[in-house]
Amino acid sequence: MKRYICELIGTMVLVLFGCGSAAIAGAALGNLGIAMAFGLSIVAMAYVIGDISGCHINPAVSIGMWIDGRMELKDLVMYIIFQCIGAIIGTALLAILINSAPSLGGYMATGLGQNGFGAASSVGINLYGALITEIILTFVFVFTVLGVTRSEKTSAIAGIVIGLTLAFVHIMGIPLTGTSVNPARSLAPALFMGGVALQQVWVFIVAPVVGAIIAGLTHKTLYNEE
Amino acid sequence: MKRYICELIGTMVLVLFGCGSAAIAGAALGNLGIAMAFGLSIVAMAYVIGDISGCHINPAVSIGMWIDGRMELKDLVMYIIFQCIGAIIGTALLAILINSAPSLGGYMATGLGQNGFGAASSVGINLYGALITEIILTFVFVFTVLGVTRSEKTSAIAGIVIGLTLAFVHIMGIPLTGTSVNPARSLAPALFMGGVALQQVWVFIVAPVVGAIIAGLTHKTLYNEE
Amino acid sequence: MKRYICELIGTMVLVLFGCGSAAIAGAALGNLGIAMAFGLSIVAMAYVIGDISGCHINPAVSIGMWIDGRMELKDLVMYIIFQCIGAIIGTALLAILINSAPSLGGYMATGLGQNGFGAASSVGINLYGALITEIILTFVFVFTVLGVTRSEKTSAIAGIVIGLTLAFVHIMGIPLTGTSVNPARSLAPALFMGGVALQQVWVFIVAPVVGAIIAGLTHKTLYNEE
Amino acid sequence: MKRYICELIGTMVLVLFGCGSAAIAGAALGNLGIAMAFGLSIVAMAYVIGDISGCHINPAVSIGMWIDGRMELKDLVMYIIFQCIGAIIGTALLAILINSAPSLGGYMATGLGQNGFGAASSVGINLYGALITEIILTFVFVFTVLGVTRSEKTSAIAGIVIGLTLAFVHIMGIPLTGTSVNPARSLAPALFMGGVALQQVWVFIVAPVVGAIIAGLTHKTLYNEE
Repeated sequence: MKRYICELIGTMVLVLFGCGSAAIAGAALGNLGIAMAFGLSIVAMAYVIGDISGCHINPAVSIGMWIDGRMELKDLVMYIIFQCIGAIIGTALLAILINSAPSLGGYMATGLGQNGFGAASSVGINLYGALITEIILTFVFVFTVLGVTRSEKTSAIAGIVIGLTLAFVHIMGIPLTGTSVNPARSLAPALFMGGVALQQVWVFIVAPVVGAIIAGLTHKTLYNEE
Repeated sequence: MKRYICELIGTMVLVLFGCGSAAIAGAALGNLGIAMAFGLSIVAMAYVIGDISGCHINPAVSIGMWIDGRMELKDLVMYIIFQCIGAIIGTALLAILINSAPSLGGYMATGLGQNGFGAASSVGINLYGALITEIILTFVFVFTVLGVTRSEKTSAIAGIVIGLTLAFVHIMGIPLTGTSVNPARSLAPALFMGGVALQQVWVFIVAPVVGAIIAGLTHKTLYNEE
Repeated sequence: MKRYICELIGTMVLVLFGCGSAAIAGAALGNLGIAMAFGLSIVAMAYVIGDISGCHINPAVSIGMWIDGRMELKDLVMYIIFQCIGAIIGTALLAILINSAPSLGGYMATGLGQNGFGAASSVGINLYGALITEIILTFVFVFTVLGVTRSEKTSAIAGIVIGLTLAFVHIMGIPLTGTSVNPARSLAPALFMGGVALQQVWVFIVAPVVGAIIAGLTHKTLYNEE
Repeated sequence: MKRYICELIGTMVLVLFGCGSAAIAGAALGNLGIAMAFGLSIVAMAYVIGDISGCHINPAVSIGMWIDGRMELKDLVMYIIFQCIGAIIGTALLAILINSAPSLGGYMATGLGQNGFGAASSVGINLYGALITEIILTFVFVFTVLGVTRSEKTSAIAGIVIGLTLAFVHIMGIPLTGTSVNPARSLAPALFMGGVALQQVWVFIVAPVVGAIIAGLTHKTLYNEE
């Protein structure tokens, strides 16, 4: 149970601070700042909950771990459930914070960092492009997570590497889709925002899962045949 | 005594450079730059004074350590006193530097990086929102500090992780309250600025203490029952 | 063969995300953000493919390694071929993504992060200056790569150091030439863009090779005579 | 001799890339980007020349090391000479690069990243404020360098910590004096620019030396009496 609670806390922090930075502080931060907010959520959480749950805080990471045979199906299901609960709590806290600052105009006006394509993308990327983007971004992210957590040599710095990699996939991805690579991180804001965000959210669930599966299989092919 | 002097020096550096970057260089830096100034003060100091005092340089961190049974009450009190003295010296140096640059118009005009809510927050966050913000930010920060300093494995990189985490909680927090998470860092500028800053400073003492207590108890629950 | 595939994947990621950030997200990112996109591609890839191929993902790095006697000529040739294939795939993916976002106006309008001088440089650097720039930047980059990968002590953090160094040489180089330091990274966008980019691309092949040779010889002189 | 050549190369890189980023790329980079350019020059160089010369690349650091009894007077003198030669070569290369880009208008127009106060400071800091600023900044920087290089435990990451700390002291210092903390880094641009830069350069030699002496003595007091 402790592991599941850790995943809940970690995903809550990721969503609150990552989506929160995008929604509240975006203009004064720039895209690099938003990318760092997402990335540093991993750095912060990895060194607290990592020893207990592994700090996946992302269903796509858990799926990659499961494909690589590092976790059981029952735990995969429980991790995903608690990650989604954590994401929902994080989004609720964000909505409360935004609504407590009158000049922000309420969370329906600022948004909650939801992902999107078409008119909801700052460059108007279409459905096809959004799917490719998220598959590639998630592949790179999960592929790195699986790689850096393999070796004892890099265990002390894995949290930093994974965090920097999450920042990395945000740098290019923010103007395209806002960067999901994490179904829980996309689902929760979509539930609160409804409308277009909710209609499009399947893309940010399906594509990260596909990217994670490709990453898991690539990792297995490269490493486990040795 | 040497430990207390180290806490004084470290807190002085944190306040001078962190608040100083916000007050002097804010516009050309952006929020990410200000966040990094606070965060890198930990990176710089952790590797000099860490071996002597642990480099808390923040009463909230010391309270978290005390709750987790890692320091005695007498040291807690002394640490907090010397942290506050250091913060006051750092603020005084900052006021001198600002006043030595005529085009800045004096420290009452630029401010000293004080925290605030309502009209003193760039998004007009209300009291209730400011309290929640600071409790959450401090919880995340102290929770990470307690986690990463537990294990020998991460001791070499703990200063980097803690510094990046302090930057992390600033990224979202700067537009809300300016981010305190550190009663000493908030008290000293409020004493110099007076007025609204001094009236509101209790929020930035109470909320970080509450956040630190929750972090300490959560940490104990997760780790010490194992 | 596995090593070559790893070089292909790594170079694909470097070019897609590095050049992609410059082409898609440049204005909202700033030069530091673009520099970090290139740099973090190394951080991400080093910890996945590093154990298999060494994560050169750059013909200049491979040449430096070969000069220092750390790889055989046959592997050097194969690495370069697969790096170039990876760069071409990465550029093709980037072109597809850009063309899927109508408001970007197509990849011929946004560019693909190609390098250039004269009218193609944001400061109008001339041919002579571009050659000097790329020789110096590549010297510094490859010199650091050779240094940090020498010692077992730094093996765990080498990927971070190399990534930060690639970001470093981009910070100054972006306004001058866009920063190549990597013939594969320059060749692929030039093939897609044609015109000026293709006419000038020899500079971004020759100069990085010269820089890498100087770095390799300097490294040998400093270390191997000990 | 090899050690001295390493100091020359390292200081050349620091000055060329640090001052170069400020002079060429400043507006598009922002102060955080300039700060990172200086800081990452240490990260890049520490892992190449660190094992040979210690990578001081700064007379203030060498003076701090000498006060702490870690180098002999003869080496101190030779280090400073070669650091200054390296800084002059770096500045000359920067002047050549700037002059090869016609739209920059020549290095007398862009400057070479020289330090200054009064009208030469972006906030008009006076002589007194400039002296205090540079003493404090250098104290913090050299104090951290002496601390992090003491322990074997942190030897692998010392280059990263020192680089981040150099970035740190630039974040607040850039608008004040441009941040010297390094007499060689200030002397070379002043020699090329002449005029006000040359008249004021004594401040950026004297104050860093004073800051380094205070750091050396503080370090000795804290650590060597144990």
